[in-house]
Amino acid sequence: MRKLQKAPALQVEQWFNSKEDITLESLRGRVVLIEVFQMLCPGCVELGLPQAKRAAQLFSPKDLVVLGLHSVFEHHAAMTPVSLQAFLQEYRIPFPVAVDLPALKGTIPQTHIPQTHIPQTMQRYQLQGTPSLILIDRQGYLRRVKFGAIDDMQLGAEIMSLIRENPLEGEEGTMKIDPASVPPGCDEKGCAI
Amino acid sequence: MRKLQKAPALQVEQWFNSKEDITLESLRGRVVLIEVFQMLCPGCVELGLPQAKRAAQLFSPKDLVVLGLHSVFEHHAAMTPVSLQAFLQEYRIPFPVAVDLPALKGTIPQTHIPQTHIPQTMQRYQLQGTPSLILIDRQGYLRRVKFGAIDDMQLGAEIMSLIRENPLEGEEGTMKIDPASVPPGCDEKGCAI
Amino acid sequence: MRKLQKAPALQVEQWFNSKEDITLESLRGRVVLIEVFQMLCPGCVELGLPQAKRAAQLFSPKDLVVLGLHSVFEHHAAMTPVSLQAFLQEYRIPFPVAVDLPALKGTIPQTHIPQTHIPQTMQRYQLQGTPSLILIDRQGYLRRVKFGAIDDMQLGAEIMSLIRENPLEGEEGTMKIDPASVPPGCDEKGCAI
Amino acid sequence: MRKLQKAPALQVEQWFNSKEDITLESLRGRVVLIEVFQMLCPGCVELGLPQAKRAAQLFSPKDLVVLGLHSVFEHHAAMTPVSLQAFLQEYRIPFPVAVDLPALKGTIPQTHIPQTHIPQTMQRYQLQGTPSLILIDRQGYLRRVKFGAIDDMQLGAEIMSLIRENPLEGEEGTMKIDPASVPPGCDEKGCAI
Repeated sequence: MRKLQKAPALQVEQWFNSKEDITLESLRGRVVLIEVFQMLCPGCVELGLPQAKRAAQLFSPKDLVVLGLHSVFEHHAAMTPVSLQAFLQEYRIPFPVAVDLPALKGTIPQTHIPQTHIPQTMQRYQLQGTPSLILIDRQGYLRRVKFGAIDDMQLGAEIMSLIRENPLEGEEGTMKIDPASVPPGCDEKGCAI
Repeated sequence: MRKLQKAPALQVEQWFNSKEDITLESLRGRVVLIEVFQMLCPGCVELGLPQAKRAAQLFSPKDLVVLGLHSVFEHHAAMTPVSLQAFLQEYRIPFPVAVDLPALKGTIPQTHIPQTHIPQTMQRYQLQGTPSLILIDRQGYLRRVKFGAIDDMQLGAEIMSLIRENPLEGEEGTMKIDPASVPPGCDEKGCAI
Repeated sequence: MRKLQKAPALQVEQWFNSKEDITLESLRGRVVLIEVFQMLCPGCVELGLPQAKRAAQLFSPKDLVVLGLHSVFEHHAAMTPVSLQAFLQEYRIPFPVAVDLPALKGTIPQTHIPQTHIPQTMQRYQLQGTPSLILIDRQGYLRRVKFGAIDDMQLGAEIMSLIRENPLEGEEGTMKIDPASVPPGCDEKGCAI
Repeated sequence: MRKLQKAPALQVEQWFNSKEDITLESLRGRVVLIEVFQMLCPGCVELGLPQAKRAAQLFSPKDLVVLGLHSVFEHHAAMTPVSLQAFLQEYRIPFPVAVDLPALKGTIPQTHIPQTHIPQTMQRYQLQGTPSLILIDRQGYLRRVKFGAIDDMQLGAEIMSLIRENPLEGEEGTMKIDPASVPPGCDEKGCAI
């Protein structure tokens, strides 16, 4: 069996949508989804962030914590915290978002993107780009790092799989929503008797 | 705690996409998803059946069996087995599909749709219309009957929750697919380092 | 300059959604869009027919007439008029729909589909399959035969081009709809001052 | 008949995607579509700009010129030219984009957005917000100002209507694309004979 690794600590410059700093340790006992994005990355805006919002809405906060991580590795001057703050407001991102800590000076470039441009948390998780999705289990182990899009059905299944691994004592994994029924009559959603 | 009921047996006139008759009993040990539809129900064609196809593709057949159930309660002359067969071919439905057994004569109408028009399995499950989604657990208990649309993320979570309840000995709930990574460079799916 | 041909007369077995038979000649003075479909053709149901409905809704009936033509060339037993009638009702097709007249016996097959299976109007227009889109100008000339999908923007432009060619005296080509403004505030549709 | 007004001149701070300044006067003889947007306006990013790209691709540049106008009326510090430049690159906007000239100091606020925050071209066109769509005819008259979303079919029709009004002598309004046919066989796009 593959040995699991603890998820590295987040290296954060500042938080939005949260009055306090958040550490992964403080979230032990819950599954954590981290949506890593850049505000000017089309795939993040179109797919990754809306999906993270759906996950935050579907699962109970007792089971799943959704965080954003703004990891800028290009166009740094275009995606400053001032721009990010307006972005989060206009796109109505409801969950806490961390600004990834810029790289230390003097590190050695290893790809065509100079490593000095890649922020620290992104480096620690060895992410390939944005959007990336990180799933951490209730005990703090890193369980999934996915670069690019993932289907909603698969993500729902992966999250629930982690939720069911170690439910808190006396509780079962729960979802908040029971979607409304289709009203009677035949429309595009279905045909009611 | 709510008492669970065994899922009623399917009442089937004939099967498509299966050489043999299928009983729920023969599927014990696996989670069963039944997509109840009418071939001329827009919501079934647009939402329900494509979602059932995605579920059949995502989960391992060792964990999840997907079945279709054609339960016609209106326009009976328009949705005969001959028409259904062409429909299944043109829409490339890959999983077994049962034709629900027509109602017995002489039963008493209880809604604006005469009960004599509602086929027998649909009656046993007390379905409200189409599309309806039925989930049965590994032990044959009825766990979910949903009329109308359900989000992919929620369905993925519900299926996995059932898969994780009673994994077959020595196995864990599995999914078949590890979606391909986004290629390097920045496109609509994301931005690669 | 390419010589235009008059659009061949429709060969019709019966009409739905129209109390009387409709001839192309009776529609002179207006642009005519004919959506050729089969009720069990996925591309027709998903793309062609919804697009034809949008066209019927957008343009004034003084400028554009939208017709459906059910041209069955496969699965004939599955797509009878009885099934078509239920289909038109369930999918809420608002415009007149003609059932294409079956082929005469004894004609000679020229493709892998025996020509005896291809209905007569489909043969006259030499269509390649379904969905097909036919545009006829105000004077009855055949201006466009398109097999498969076409973008909404392009179709809107093509229809308007024909409408503007020969406006009825004293009138200009018109559209019925002035879409509602976005309400104030910033939402997914836009940002109001 | 309503009297038409000449489209006011654009007040531009700088141009992107164009080596030279562009004036509306220099575009006489062609229809002009101006997509007014803010880079952090979700409706602009999701609907307005992609639609403008489709229009630029569909129509011949001899008939239609597509321009972007970045008119920032909120979050000014978040949407500077530096950020816009990165946005245009990441979202692959191919047409010229003008930065609307900031408001003059000392003008008097008349709405809840201080008028000093509304850039000058936006004021001249009395726009209500973003996205807004402006259509100017071949003679430079303002023909359409639309705040919010508009259907592709309707926009295609409106553009073609203007193109057909005053075609350049000896030319007819043209479109660049003849979309590829559906390949033989029955798939989600259609069914080929």
